[in-house]
Amino acid sequence: MDMTRYKFHVSYDGSCFFGFQIQPNVRTVQGEIEKALKKISKGYFVRIHGAGRTDTGVHAKGQVIHFDFPNYLKPDAMQRALNTLVPNDIVLFNPEIVTTDFHSRYSALEKTYEFRVYNQELRSPFLWNYSIHHPYPMDLEAVEEALSALEGTHDFTSFSSAKAEVSNRVRTIYEASVRIDNETHEWVFTFRGNGFLYHMIRIIMGTLLPIADGRKPAREMKEILEAKDRQRAGMTAYSNGLCLLSVSYKQ
Amino acid sequence: MDMTRYKFHVSYDGSCFFGFQIQPNVRTVQGEIEKALKKISKGYFVRIHGAGRTDTGVHAKGQVIHFDFPNYLKPDAMQRALNTLVPNDIVLFNPEIVTTDFHSRYSALEKTYEFRVYNQELRSPFLWNYSIHHPYPMDLEAVEEALSALEGTHDFTSFSSAKAEVSNRVRTIYEASVRIDNETHEWVFTFRGNGFLYHMIRIIMGTLLPIADGRKPAREMKEILEAKDRQRAGMTAYSNGLCLLSVSYKQ
Repeated sequence: MDMTRYKFHVSYDGSCFFGFQIQPNVRTVQGEIEKALKKISKGYFVRIHGAGRTDTGVHAKGQVIHFDFPNYLKPDAMQRALNTLVPNDIVLFNPEIVTTDFHSRYSALEKTYEFRVYNQELRSPFLWNYSIHHPYPMDLEAVEEALSALEGTHDFTSFSSAKAEVSNRVRTIYEASVRIDNETHEWVFTFRGNGFLYHMIRIIMGTLLPIADGRKPAREMKEILEAKDRQRAGMTAYSNGLCLLSVSYKQ
Repeated sequence: MDMTRYKFHVSYDGSCFFGFQIQPNVRTVQGEIEKALKKISKGYFVRIHGAGRTDTGVHAKGQVIHFDFPNYLKPDAMQRALNTLVPNDIVLFNPEIVTTDFHSRYSALEKTYEFRVYNQELRSPFLWNYSIHHPYPMDLEAVEEALSALEGTHDFTSFSSAKAEVSNRVRTIYEASVRIDNETHEWVFTFRGNGFLYHMIRIIMGTLLPIADGRKPAREMKEILEAKDRQRAGMTAYSNGLCLLSVSYKQ
């Protein structure tokens, strides 16, 4: 059979998904896209591969997937067919036909995630699926000092879930920054790196918030990082503030 | 029993409600707030009254309610208790104790609604509950001409649901305007008036979109208004673009 490899960007609202990765009996992003592909291929099962396996409640604006389709369809026609068949909380865009040495996950050089924190006394009924609510005053200087400790190449064992099944926990973070959106009252954190461990950004955020509101000193971030001990870091922040913004590849 | 009348602003994400007004066996905003009040009053049933009965899927950022509570609680304490007990997609704010001649609906002078239209070729998975998707190019000049026909005091029978049980369909619209949000690619329509008939804004929007994308001439809005005939107007637009922004009262 003549296979065609497609690459797509995928955006989804993670609120009503049990994550990206397919699992029996629950609604997942992968499951919905594979169901649509099976209809387009008239019954042939097509496996999709995503750049990052986002957890339950995590969103994506620039997830990247690839799959091998047992036939040829123009990229635009494939996009139209997929968007007609997947539910409204998923959309696929930027279709491309790629060579078989492209792999959405293994060819990825960098990923950028955003984590949003809603910083007002009362919760917002419109943001609670997209931004975690932190009702205490936050100190920008302390946050920036703590974030700068994370940039560079480090062993991120302290910020890695005990469940992570990798032996090498060294990663490089190119950017760990924050901006304040005064219109929506959100603190928007950006993390760009060559890879992230399981729950890494959520544990970083769970460690950062007590620094932001003054319960802990800013220097703790560096101390915790150097301790290489998950017990020293904070709790795992809720997933719904997290969004996979983009994945970059060699040109 | 000594009653205290409270006034509150209420904001809610209408996505998961069958509208504001209480109905048996379904989740409504009124139902959730009355359930919370019953807990605060230790079992005494408290009826709430809203300024506008928003439909299924319609949102609110500034709904106003009032209720008589069989006891006295400081406004701040009442707000805290309510927000602890209602679900996350509702929030109550701006608590006030008012005199018994205040009624959230009958004392209202003006209401302002917003209707959002997402104008991009592909749908957005993040906006589909908040903004209706219109994928065709839209003409600002035609839209503004059509909107201006609506301002003033008119008989709005053409834009009134057959189900509306009122005899007087004359209403005054002080403002019918539009702005384009270039960041989110939304056209944001604002309607401010002394009152709106059942489905009136949704029927106006269903009439306006074919004008916006050039299928109908702009002058039709005025002709349809003058015809006083529901058959002449367009279809009722989906409810999820609509949001009750604010209600104003005599000072």
